[in-house]
Amino acid sequence: MPHIQLPEGLPGIRGPMAFRPETSKPLNELVEVLLRGPSTLTPGERELIATYVSTQNDCYYCQTIHGAIAAAHLDGNEELVRAVKRDFLHAEISEKLRALLTIAGKVQKGGKNVSSQDVAHARELGATDLEIHDTVLIAAVFCMCNRYVDGLATWAPDDPELYRQRGKMVARDGYVAANLKNLSPATHDLVSK
Amino acid sequence: MPHIQLPEGLPGIRGPMAFRPETSKPLNELVEVLLRGPSTLTPGERELIATYVSTQNDCYYCQTIHGAIAAAHLDGNEELVRAVKRDFLHAEISEKLRALLTIAGKVQKGGKNVSSQDVAHARELGATDLEIHDTVLIAAVFCMCNRYVDGLATWAPDDPELYRQRGKMVARDGYVAANLKNLSPATHDLVSK
Repeated sequence: MPHIQLPEGLPGIRGPMAFRPETSKPLNELVEVLLRGPSTLTPGERELIATYVSTQNDCYYCQTIHGAIAAAHLDGNEELVRAVKRDFLHAEISEKLRALLTIAGKVQKGGKNVSSQDVAHARELGATDLEIHDTVLIAAVFCMCNRYVDGLATWAPDDPELYRQRGKMVARDGYVAANLKNLSPATHDLVSK
Repeated sequence: MPHIQLPEGLPGIRGPMAFRPETSKPLNELVEVLLRGPSTLTPGERELIATYVSTQNDCYYCQTIHGAIAAAHLDGNEELVRAVKRDFLHAEISEKLRALLTIAGKVQKGGKNVSSQDVAHARELGATDLEIHDTVLIAAVFCMCNRYVDGLATWAPDDPELYRQRGKMVARDGYVAANLKNLSPATHDLVSK
Protein backbone atom coordinates (compact mmCIF):
# COMPACT_ATOMS: atom_id res chain seq x y z
CA MET A 1 0.00 0.00 0.00
CA PRO A 2 1.39 3.44 -0.87
CA HIS A 3 2.64 5.52 2.06
CA ILE A 4 0.20 8.33 1.21
CA GLN A 5 -3.32 8.40 -0.24
CA LEU A 6 -2.81 8.46 -4.01
CA PRO A 7 -5.40 8.45 -6.82
CA GLU A 8 -6.38 4.82 -7.32
CA GLY A 9 -5.67 2.72 -10.38
CA LEU A 10 -2.47 4.48 -11.48
CA PRO A 11 0.68 2.39 -11.04
CA GLY A 12 4.23 3.56 -10.32
CA ILE A 13 5.05 7.20 -10.86
CA ARG A 14 1.61 7.89 -12.36
CA GLY A 15 -0.05 7.91 -8.92
CA PRO A 16 2.12 10.66 -7.37
CA MET A 17 2.10 12.52 -10.69
CA ALA A 18 -1.69 12.69 -10.64
CA PHE A 19 -1.58 13.59 -6.92
CA ARG A 20 0.71 16.58 -7.54
CA PRO A 21 0.15 18.02 -11.05
CA GLU A 22 2.23 21.15 -10.23
CA THR A 23 5.39 19.05 -10.05
CA SER A 24 4.40 16.44 -12.63
CA LYS A 25 4.16 19.05 -15.38
CA PRO A 26 7.88 20.01 -15.37
CA LEU A 27 8.84 16.40 -14.59
CA ASN A 28 7.07 15.14 -17.70
CA GLU A 29 8.50 17.96 -19.78
CA LEU A 30 12.00 17.11 -18.57
CA VAL A 31 11.66 13.43 -19.45
CA GLU A 32 10.02 14.29 -22.77
CA VAL A 33 12.86 16.53 -23.99
CA LEU A 34 15.60 14.33 -22.53
CA LEU A 35 14.35 10.96 -23.80
CA ARG A 36 12.48 11.97 -26.94
CA GLY A 37 13.70 15.42 -28.00
CA PRO A 38 16.14 16.04 -30.87
CA SER A 39 19.34 14.06 -30.18
CA THR A 40 21.98 12.00 -31.93
CA LEU A 41 21.12 9.23 -29.46
CA THR A 42 18.02 7.36 -30.60
CA PRO A 43 14.98 7.21 -28.30
CA GLY A 44 15.66 3.46 -28.02
CA GLU A 45 19.24 4.08 -26.82
CA ARG A 46 18.08 6.65 -24.30
CA GLU A 47 15.36 4.35 -22.97
CA LEU A 48 17.95 1.58 -22.59
CA ILE A 49 20.03 3.91 -20.38
CA ALA A 50 16.92 4.73 -18.31
CA THR A 51 16.04 1.03 -18.05
CA TYR A 52 19.55 0.02 -17.03
CA VAL A 53 19.79 2.66 -14.28
CA SER A 54 16.33 1.74 -12.97
CA THR A 55 17.40 -1.90 -12.87
CA GLN A 56 20.52 -1.01 -10.88
CA ASN A 57 18.28 0.91 -8.47
CA ASP A 58 16.03 -2.15 -8.24
CA CYS A 59 12.92 -0.15 -9.17
CA TYR A 60 10.50 -2.70 -10.59
CA TYR A 61 8.00 -0.26 -12.08
CA CYS A 62 10.55 1.98 -13.81
CA GLN A 63 12.74 -0.79 -15.19
CA THR A 64 9.69 -2.63 -16.54
CA ILE A 65 7.86 0.30 -18.12
CA HIS A 66 11.01 1.88 -19.58
CA GLY A 67 12.14 -1.56 -20.76
CA ALA A 68 8.80 -1.84 -22.55
CA ILE A 69 9.15 1.65 -24.05
CA ALA A 70 12.71 0.79 -25.15
CA ALA A 71 11.50 -2.42 -26.79
CA ALA A 72 8.71 -0.50 -28.57
CA HIS A 73 11.36 1.85 -30.01
CA LEU A 74 13.56 -1.14 -30.95
CA ASP A 75 11.10 -3.01 -33.18
CA GLY A 76 9.85 -5.05 -30.23
CA ASN A 77 13.29 -6.48 -29.43
CA GLU A 78 12.60 -7.44 -25.81
CA GLU A 79 15.54 -9.84 -25.80
CA LEU A 80 17.95 -6.93 -26.36
CA VAL A 81 16.39 -5.06 -23.43
CA ARG A 82 16.81 -8.13 -21.21
CA ALA A 83 20.42 -8.52 -22.37
CA VAL A 84 21.25 -4.89 -21.49
CA LYS A 85 19.65 -5.26 -18.05
CA ARG A 86 21.48 -8.53 -17.41
CA ASP A 87 24.95 -7.73 -18.74
CA PHE A 88 25.28 -4.76 -21.09
CA LEU A 89 29.00 -5.44 -21.64
CA HIS A 90 28.02 -8.48 -23.69
CA ALA A 91 24.78 -7.21 -25.24
CA GLU A 92 24.49 -6.55 -28.96
CA ILE A 93 24.74 -2.77 -28.78
CA SER A 94 27.23 -0.29 -30.20
CA GLU A 95 30.58 0.19 -28.48
CA LYS A 96 29.60 3.83 -27.93
CA LEU A 97 26.40 2.90 -26.11
CA ARG A 98 28.37 0.42 -24.02
CA ALA A 99 30.72 3.24 -22.95
CA LEU A 100 27.75 5.51 -22.17
CA LEU A 101 26.09 2.78 -20.10
CA THR A 102 29.34 2.46 -18.14
CA ILE A 103 29.12 6.18 -17.34
CA ALA A 104 25.43 5.85 -16.44
CA GLY A 105 26.22 2.98 -14.08
CA LYS A 106 28.82 5.10 -12.30
CA VAL A 107 26.40 8.03 -11.96
CA GLN A 108 23.87 5.65 -10.42
CA LYS A 109 26.34 4.87 -7.63
CA GLY A 110 27.22 8.57 -7.20
CA GLY A 111 28.42 11.29 -9.56
CA LYS A 112 32.01 11.30 -8.30
CA ASN A 113 32.52 7.76 -9.62
CA VAL A 114 32.65 8.98 -13.23
CA SER A 115 36.32 9.25 -14.20
CA SER A 116 38.09 11.22 -16.92
CA GLN A 117 39.06 7.84 -18.38
CA ASP A 118 35.40 6.79 -18.65
CA VAL A 119 34.62 9.99 -20.52
CA ALA A 120 37.72 9.81 -22.73
CA HIS A 121 36.83 6.23 -23.65
CA ALA A 122 33.28 7.21 -24.63
CA ARG A 123 34.66 10.09 -26.68
CA GLU A 124 37.12 7.81 -28.52
CA LEU A 125 34.15 5.68 -29.50
CA GLY A 126 32.41 8.69 -31.00
CA ALA A 127 30.39 10.12 -28.12
CA THR A 128 29.88 13.89 -28.27
CA ASP A 129 29.81 16.25 -25.29
CA LEU A 130 26.05 16.52 -25.66
CA GLU A 131 25.67 12.74 -25.62
CA ILE A 132 27.85 12.49 -22.52
CA HIS A 133 25.87 15.30 -20.86
CA ASP A 134 22.56 13.66 -21.67
CA THR A 135 23.76 10.26 -20.45
CA VAL A 136 24.75 11.74 -17.08
CA LEU A 137 21.45 13.59 -16.82
CA ILE A 138 19.33 10.58 -17.86
CA ALA A 139 21.09 8.47 -15.21
CA ALA A 140 20.57 11.24 -12.62
CA VAL A 141 16.92 11.72 -13.57
CA PHE A 142 16.20 8.02 -13.09
CA CYS A 143 17.95 8.04 -9.72
CA MET A 144 15.28 10.63 -8.92
CA CYS A 145 12.31 8.82 -10.50
CA ASN A 146 13.23 5.48 -8.92
CA ARG A 147 13.41 7.08 -5.45
CA TYR A 148 10.15 8.93 -6.03
CA VAL A 149 8.36 5.71 -7.04
CA ASP A 150 9.79 3.50 -4.29
CA GLY A 151 10.04 6.19 -1.59
CA LEU A 152 6.24 6.49 -1.68
CA ALA A 153 5.78 2.69 -1.93
CA THR A 154 3.67 2.94 -5.07
CA TRP A 155 2.18 -0.26 -6.45
CA ALA A 156 3.05 -1.90 -9.75
CA PRO A 157 1.14 -4.55 -11.74
CA ASP A 158 2.83 -7.86 -12.58
CA ASP A 159 1.30 -8.56 -16.02
CA PRO A 160 4.00 -7.87 -18.69
CA GLU A 161 1.24 -7.27 -21.27
CA LEU A 162 0.09 -4.14 -19.44
CA TYR A 163 3.62 -2.69 -19.65
CA ARG A 164 3.89 -3.74 -23.29
CA GLN A 165 0.70 -1.88 -24.22
CA ARG A 166 1.58 1.22 -22.23
CA GLY A 167 5.14 1.09 -23.61
CA LYS A 168 3.84 1.18 -27.17
CA MET A 169 1.57 4.10 -26.34
CA VAL A 170 4.31 6.17 -24.69
CA ALA A 171 6.75 5.36 -27.51
CA ARG A 172 4.14 6.60 -29.97
CA ASP A 173 2.58 9.59 -28.15
CA GLY A 174 5.28 10.70 -25.71
CA TYR A 175 5.31 11.36 -21.97
CA VAL A 176 3.44 14.63 -21.85
CA ALA A 177 0.53 13.34 -23.95
CA ALA A 178 0.37 9.95 -22.20
CA ASN A 179 0.38 11.49 -18.73
CA LEU A 180 -2.12 14.23 -19.44
CA LYS A 181 -4.67 11.45 -19.41
CA ASN A 182 -3.88 10.81 -15.74
CA LEU A 183 -5.44 14.12 -14.90
CA SER A 184 -8.72 13.65 -16.69
CA PRO A 185 -11.33 11.66 -14.75
CA ALA A 186 -13.06 10.79 -18.03
CA THR A 187 -10.08 8.85 -19.36
CA HIS A 188 -8.85 7.69 -15.95
CA ASP A 189 -10.53 4.29 -16.16
CA LEU A 190 -9.29 3.74 -19.69
CA VAL A 191 -5.62 4.35 -19.05
CA SER A 192 -5.53 2.59 -15.69
CA LYS A 193 -6.92 -0.73 -16.91
CA MET B 1 38.15 20.40 -14.96
CA PRO B 2 34.63 19.47 -16.06
CA HIS B 3 34.31 16.27 -18.11
CA ILE B 4 32.77 18.19 -21.02
CA GLN B 5 33.26 21.69 -22.42
CA LEU B 6 30.86 23.88 -20.43
CA PRO B 7 30.27 27.65 -20.62
CA GLU B 8 32.99 29.24 -18.50
CA GLY B 9 32.47 31.10 -15.26
CA LEU B 10 29.32 29.28 -14.11
CA PRO B 11 29.85 27.03 -11.08
CA GLY B 12 28.04 23.82 -10.18
CA ILE B 13 24.76 23.05 -11.91
CA ARG B 14 24.76 26.42 -13.66
CA GLY B 15 27.37 25.30 -16.21
CA PRO B 16 25.42 22.28 -17.54
CA MET B 17 22.19 24.26 -17.28
CA ALA B 18 23.58 26.94 -19.60
CA PHE B 19 25.01 24.20 -21.84
CA ARG B 20 21.60 22.54 -22.27
CA PRO B 21 18.77 25.09 -21.96
CA GLU B 22 16.19 22.60 -23.27
CA THR B 23 16.55 20.49 -20.11
CA SER B 24 17.35 23.34 -17.71
CA LYS B 25 13.98 25.00 -18.36
CA PRO B 26 11.84 22.17 -16.90
CA LEU B 27 14.52 21.49 -14.25
CA ASN B 28 14.34 25.05 -12.96
CA GLU B 29 10.54 25.02 -13.10
CA LEU B 30 10.48 21.80 -11.08
CA VAL B 31 12.77 23.18 -8.38
CA GLU B 32 10.88 26.48 -8.36
CA VAL B 33 7.47 24.93 -7.70
CA LEU B 34 8.80 22.30 -5.30
CA LEU B 35 11.00 24.56 -3.15
CA ARG B 36 9.20 27.88 -3.47
CA GLY B 37 5.63 27.20 -4.61
CA PRO B 38 2.60 27.30 -2.31
CA SER B 39 3.16 24.83 0.53
CA THR B 40 2.62 24.40 4.25
CA LEU B 41 6.37 23.76 4.51
CA THR B 42 8.27 27.05 4.53
CA PRO B 43 10.89 27.69 1.82
CA GLY B 44 13.49 27.56 4.62
CA GLU B 45 12.33 24.10 5.72
CA ARG B 46 12.37 22.83 2.13
CA GLU B 47 15.86 24.24 1.51
CA LEU B 48 17.05 22.52 4.70
CA ILE B 49 15.83 19.19 3.30
CA ALA B 50 17.64 19.91 0.01
CA THR B 51 20.80 20.91 1.89
CA TYR B 52 20.74 17.84 4.11
CA VAL B 53 20.31 15.41 1.19
CA SER B 54 23.09 17.16 -0.77
CA THR B 55 25.36 16.85 2.26
CA GLN B 56 24.62 13.13 2.53
CA ASN B 57 25.50 12.83 -1.17
CA ASP B 58 28.73 14.75 -0.49
CA CYS B 59 27.97 17.31 -3.21
CA TYR B 60 29.93 20.41 -2.20
CA TYR B 61 28.30 22.87 -4.59
CA CYS B 62 24.69 21.85 -3.86
CA GLN B 63 25.03 21.61 -0.09
CA THR B 64 26.77 25.02 0.03
CA ILE B 65 24.47 26.96 -2.27
CA HIS B 66 21.28 25.45 -0.87
CA GLY B 67 22.62 25.93 2.64
CA ALA B 68 23.11 29.60 1.76
CA ILE B 69 19.59 29.84 0.29
CA ALA B 70 18.19 28.15 3.41
CA ALA B 71 20.05 30.62 5.65
CA ALA B 72 18.73 33.54 3.58
CA HIS B 73 15.18 32.27 4.17
CA LEU B 74 15.93 31.76 7.89
CA ASP B 75 16.97 35.32 8.77
CA GLY B 76 20.61 34.51 8.07
CA ASN B 77 20.78 31.71 10.64
CA GLU B 78 23.81 29.89 9.23
CA GLU B 79 24.39 28.11 12.54
CA LEU B 80 21.03 26.34 12.21
CA VAL B 81 21.96 25.20 8.70
CA ARG B 82 25.28 23.84 9.98
CA ALA B 83 23.49 22.09 12.85
CA VAL B 84 21.06 20.36 10.47
CA LYS B 85 23.91 19.25 8.21
CA ARG B 86 25.94 17.96 11.17
CA ASP B 87 23.23 16.26 13.24
CA PHE B 88 19.63 17.18 12.51
CA LEU B 89 18.35 14.96 15.34
CA HIS B 90 19.75 17.49 17.80
CA ALA B 91 19.21 20.69 15.78
CA GLU B 92 16.71 23.33 16.91
CA ILE B 93 13.99 22.47 14.41
CA SER B 94 10.41 21.26 14.81
CA GLU B 95 9.75 17.62 15.60
CA LYS B 96 7.82 17.41 12.33
CA LEU B 97 10.78 18.63 10.27
CA ARG B 98 13.00 16.16 12.10
CA ALA B 99 10.67 13.33 11.07
CA LEU B 100 10.64 14.59 7.47
CA LEU B 101 14.44 14.79 7.41
CA THR B 102 14.53 11.17 8.58
CA ILE B 103 12.38 10.24 5.57
CA ALA B 104 14.58 12.34 3.25
CA GLY B 105 17.71 10.60 4.56
CA LYS B 106 16.17 7.20 3.80
CA VAL B 107 15.20 8.28 0.28
CA GLN B 108 18.80 9.41 -0.28
CA LYS B 109 19.99 5.85 0.38
CA GLY B 110 17.24 4.39 -1.83
CA GLY B 111 13.45 4.72 -1.89
CA LYS B 112 12.75 1.28 -0.41
CA ASN B 113 14.35 2.34 2.87
CA VAL B 114 11.35 4.50 3.78
CA SER B 115 9.16 2.48 6.16
CA SER B 116 5.49 2.74 7.08
CA GLN B 117 6.70 3.54 10.60
CA ASP B 118 8.76 6.52 9.34
CA VAL B 119 5.68 7.87 7.59
CA ALA B 120 3.32 7.15 10.51
CA HIS B 121 5.73 8.94 12.85
CA ALA B 122 5.83 12.03 10.61
CA ARG B 123 2.05 11.98 10.39
CA GLU B 124 1.68 11.79 14.20
CA LEU B 125 3.81 14.93 14.41
CA GLY B 126 1.46 16.74 12.05
CA ALA B 127 2.88 16.04 8.59
CA THR B 128 0.27 15.95 5.82
CA ASP B 129 0.30 13.64 2.81
CA LEU B 130 1.37 16.56 0.64
CA GLU B 131 4.27 17.37 2.97
CA ILE B 132 5.36 13.73 2.95
CA HIS B 133 5.07 13.63 -0.84
CA ASP B 134 7.09 16.79 -1.25
CA THR B 135 9.76 15.61 1.18
CA VAL B 136 10.23 12.39 -0.81
CA LEU B 137 10.33 14.33 -4.09
CA ILE B 138 12.75 17.00 -2.78
CA ALA B 139 15.10 14.25 -1.57
CA ALA B 140 14.79 12.46 -4.92
CA VAL B 141 15.33 15.67 -6.91
CA PHE B 142 18.54 16.41 -5.04
CA CYS B 143 19.78 12.86 -5.60
CA MET B 144 19.41 13.85 -9.26
CA CYS B 145 20.97 17.32 -9.01
CA ASN B 146 23.93 16.08 -6.95
CA ARG B 147 24.69 13.37 -9.51
CA TYR B 148 24.30 15.85 -12.38
CA VAL B 149 26.74 18.29 -10.77
CA ASP B 150 29.35 15.72 -9.72
CA GLY B 151 28.87 13.32 -12.64
CA LEU B 152 30.09 16.08 -14.98
CA ALA B 153 32.86 17.13 -12.55
CA THR B 154 31.70 20.75 -12.49
CA TRP B 155 33.81 23.23 -10.54
CA ALA B 156 32.75 25.10 -7.41
CA PRO B 157 34.26 28.21 -5.80
CA ASP B 158 35.51 28.06 -2.19
CA ASP B 159 34.64 31.59 -1.00
CA PRO B 160 31.56 31.36 1.29
CA GLU B 161 30.71 34.99 0.52
CA LEU B 162 29.94 34.10 -3.12
CA TYR B 163 27.41 31.50 -1.98
CA ARG B 164 25.97 33.92 0.58
CA GLN B 165 25.35 36.56 -2.10
CA ARG B 166 23.91 34.14 -4.60
CA GLY B 167 21.83 32.51 -1.83
CA LYS B 168 20.22 35.84 -1.01
CA MET B 169 19.49 36.50 -4.67
CA VAL B 170 17.87 33.09 -5.26
CA ALA B 171 15.88 33.38 -2.01
CA ARG B 172 14.60 36.76 -3.21
CA ASP B 173 14.10 36.18 -6.97
CA GLY B 174 13.64 32.42 -7.31
CA TYR B 175 15.29 29.77 -9.45
CA VAL B 176 13.75 30.55 -12.80
CA ALA B 177 14.60 34.25 -12.63
CA ALA B 178 18.11 33.68 -11.23
CA ASN B 179 18.99 31.12 -13.87
CA LEU B 180 17.57 32.98 -16.84
CA LYS B 181 20.59 35.21 -16.44
CA ASN B 182 22.86 32.25 -17.25
CA LEU B 183 21.55 32.32 -20.76
CA SER B 184 22.13 35.97 -21.48
CA PRO B 185 25.69 36.84 -22.56
CA ALA B 186 25.10 40.44 -21.43
CA THR B 187 24.67 39.47 -17.80
CA HIS B 188 26.96 36.46 -17.92
CA ASP B 189 29.96 38.31 -16.53
CA LEU B 190 27.91 39.88 -13.78
CA VAL B 191 26.43 36.70 -12.37
CA SER B 192 29.59 34.63 -12.71
CA LYS B 193 31.82 36.94 -10.71
